[in-house]
Amino acid sequence: MTSNHTAIGDTICAISTPQGMGGIAVVRVSGPEALDVVGRRWQGAPLDAMTSHTAHLGHIVDTSGELLDEVVLTIYRAPRSFTGEDVIELSCHGSTWIQQQIIGTLVDAGARLAEPGEFTRRAFASGRLDLSQAEAVADVIAATSQASHRLAMTQMRGDFARKLNELREQLLHFVALLELELDFSEEDVNFADRTQLIGLARDIRDVIDRLASSFTVGNAIKRGLPVAIVGQTNAGKSTILNALLHDDRALVSDIHGTTRDVIEDTITLGGTLFRFIDTAGLRDSDDTIENMGIERAFRKMDEAQLVLWVIDGTTPAAQATAMSQQIVPHCQDKSLIAVVNKTDLADASPLLEALPALLPEHSTIIAISAHTASDVQRLEDAIVEAARMPHIAHGDIVVTNARHEQALKAASQALTRAIDGLDAGLSGDLVSQDIRECVHHLGTITGAITTNDILGEIFAHFCIGK
Amino acid sequence: MTSNHTAIGDTICAISTPQGMGGIAVVRVSGPEALDVVGRRWQGAPLDAMTSHTAHLGHIVDTSGELLDEVVLTIYRAPRSFTGEDVIELSCHGSTWIQQQIIGTLVDAGARLAEPGEFTRRAFASGRLDLSQAEAVADVIAATSQASHRLAMTQMRGDFARKLNELREQLLHFVALLELELDFSEEDVNFADRTQLIGLARDIRDVIDRLASSFTVGNAIKRGLPVAIVGQTNAGKSTILNALLHDDRALVSDIHGTTRDVIEDTITLGGTLFRFIDTAGLRDSDDTIENMGIERAFRKMDEAQLVLWVIDGTTPAAQATAMSQQIVPHCQDKSLIAVVNKTDLADASPLLEALPALLPEHSTIIAISAHTASDVQRLEDAIVEAARMPHIAHGDIVVTNARHEQALKAASQALTRAIDGLDAGLSGDLVSQDIRECVHHLGTITGAITTNDILGEIFAHFCIGK
Repeated sequence: MTSNHTAIGDTICAISTPQGMGGIAVVRVSGPEALDVVGRRWQGAPLDAMTSHTAHLGHIVDTSGELLDEVVLTIYRAPRSFTGEDVIELSCHGSTWIQQQIIGTLVDAGARLAEPGEFTRRAFASGRLDLSQAEAVADVIAATSQASHRLAMTQMRGDFARKLNELREQLLHFVALLELELDFSEEDVNFADRTQLIGLARDIRDVIDRLASSFTVGNAIKRGLPVAIVGQTNAGKSTILNALLHDDRALVSDIHGTTRDVIEDTITLGGTLFRFIDTAGLRDSDDTIENMGIERAFRKMDEAQLVLWVIDGTTPAAQATAMSQQIVPHCQDKSLIAVVNKTDLADASPLLEALPALLPEHSTIIAISAHTASDVQRLEDAIVEAARMPHIAHGDIVVTNARHEQALKAASQALTRAIDGLDAGLSGDLVSQDIRECVHHLGTITGAITTNDILGEIFAHFCIGK
Repeated sequence: MTSNHTAIGDTICAISTPQGMGGIAVVRVSGPEALDVVGRRWQGAPLDAMTSHTAHLGHIVDTSGELLDEVVLTIYRAPRSFTGEDVIELSCHGSTWIQQQIIGTLVDAGARLAEPGEFTRRAFASGRLDLSQAEAVADVIAATSQASHRLAMTQMRGDFARKLNELREQLLHFVALLELELDFSEEDVNFADRTQLIGLARDIRDVIDRLASSFTVGNAIKRGLPVAIVGQTNAGKSTILNALLHDDRALVSDIHGTTRDVIEDTITLGGTLFRFIDTAGLRDSDDTIENMGIERAFRKMDEAQLVLWVIDGTTPAAQATAMSQQIVPHCQDKSLIAVVNKTDLADASPLLEALPALLPEHSTIIAISAHTASDVQRLEDAIVEAARMPHIAHGDIVVTNARHEQALKAASQALTRAIDGLDAGLSGDLVSQDIRECVHHLGTITGAITTNDILGEIFAHFCIGK
């Protein structure tokens, strides 16, 4: 395992609880000098005599010995701690002033302020967590729905890492067989049955491909299922977005072309997190900036898993036909809901009759005024129904991390080269090189193979104190 | 001790750490059923077998047994806990979603959501803290400066309560002597030397009065020393306040009479917390609302301990004289700083020459443009110098609570009646009644005597989870 780029050996401290004022706050100290550093500011039972995993009431004082706070100190001795090092947690009064003073006096006593994620990074460096587990710690903390929490917990518990290690072991066994052939190449022995090997490689690639493709679902669960809201200018896209979000996030006016930037916001409907993307109105415009917005709207449609096409109920059928020719080509392989808006202002029946013929199969048409709660509820139901997210059971392995998806795809490509090589009757040493590359890519996920750049990138996104 | 109005006997739970997302959060459970309630959702070492003050890694699950989070559980057995009851603290991942889920599942398992301050209230009810110490817990959490923190810590450690109990004991001894006379009244015995008693009562009253008058300082430390900013409309009061606060809190424009409401904001200068009060411009106005603002400005001047009079540098000396006649009468017994503003726009020397004669002794005059950092620094220095807050040493008893000040004043008045009675040669039973009233008022501070109304009022201002 490649070691951490920050020096292991010094002692770090941070406020681990959320920022702000509360009943209590927790200051965490980790490192070989944790007991010494805290001991310089602690008045209470001697730290050296304490058993691991015990809590003690005492005082934290400043440099001049003045009482800062009455605290509960909990000691976790190496290696039985989160980081694997000696850890001390101080549960103090939740004043922001006290929290800062305690951190200040600990730094003064020889600790260093922890970088974001540094406690978890140390847990990885000491082998307490593999890299995918460490990454899952951040996901567990950021989880905002049951589905995203369940995925992160599964990953944190190491199920994903175990699956990957299983695949790596199979592949390394594969390589061993191929390389055994090389040792006996003079004798022209074939230890590995090529047909059997190709079958095995294909099975492994299937598993890797399934994991990689689970990222579409995993990412939707973690970041929200992307829903693009498109339609002509002034059809009421922003009004509908606001109704769904129950706030006034998007700027609404009756001037055509108000929404030029792509606005994103998330909301949980029926237990699924949705990421709504409001787009610029689709129309021919001379405004360069607005035309850029329209191009971006098409791109967002391509990226979305669900498209809401908002149509003014007074739109003539001929115009709706022209619009549908712009929109439908961007809606292959995804759900489309046509939202006929402003039905309170005009008779929308000609449009409602013309629409079904314009839309792909399995599209939904819903008439709405966007002004009543029941209309919004019907739209929400239609969105939840159209999204049809697969149910994630506890223990299902779903990839939620773009880095992991990339590594899995690279692993699959290497394995495809190996399979092609076996098919073409290439020699074992050439094939085993591709399989070793596949093993390497899987290893970057668990951190068995890693670089300081990857580590730096991963832990920079953690919060301080974790 | 009067008991708590909420039923002691049920088990409460709350998130004790600040709101929001962080590395970790702490959920606290207290009550006779704490072990049973948590036990229904805990997977780990059996709670019944745990020693008090020990920490254990395990899992919290929901009703259906699904894993919610990996947590560290710390157990504090009654009576060796903050509340005096069985307490369990769960240190979980700091996702707001997880925090809510854990609270939800604990409530489902039989706990009740704690009211604000209910943990501290239970500590009071179980005799772990007296009332003044319990109140100090909230002050410790809210402390934003070294001085306010020091006062709150002193009070929380019980120094104030010890002083009050000392006074109560002296008074009760006093009453005992007087009442002993009554038992032997037939025999006309004078156990209590009246002259000695009067001397003792006066000494005690002096201590009580000193404590009561320390509230002016204590309140200034806790809430900020009140500084009123006054002057003619458009003299630049809001600009100066903004410069001091380093933000754009007050609305600034060049229309006369912009600031109609009294704006308050606090800032720490030279270790002292100041509460700046921007007031409506002083001028004759036909606007009723604005005139109400001017009246309020005079009232705020009366309440302030320091007045900043902001004068436009171009003001003619005659006009400044007229203004000073409005302002100076409201500045008796307090510091006054005349801030001559806009000296970058005009020659302010005629005004600067005229001013000293218009102001009370010990006033400060400072010329400023309010646009350079050095000007603001000079003004800050002048404010700190003029405030001259007494240094509060660790252990000094300073009253910071309006409820305590009121009780001390009532105690002093009762004692004055007793002294007058002794002077007038009233019989012991009449005098002892007044002394008992004095003892009563002191008792309301520590909670030796209290009512549910007082308790409800005090703890309603706590944060949840403390």
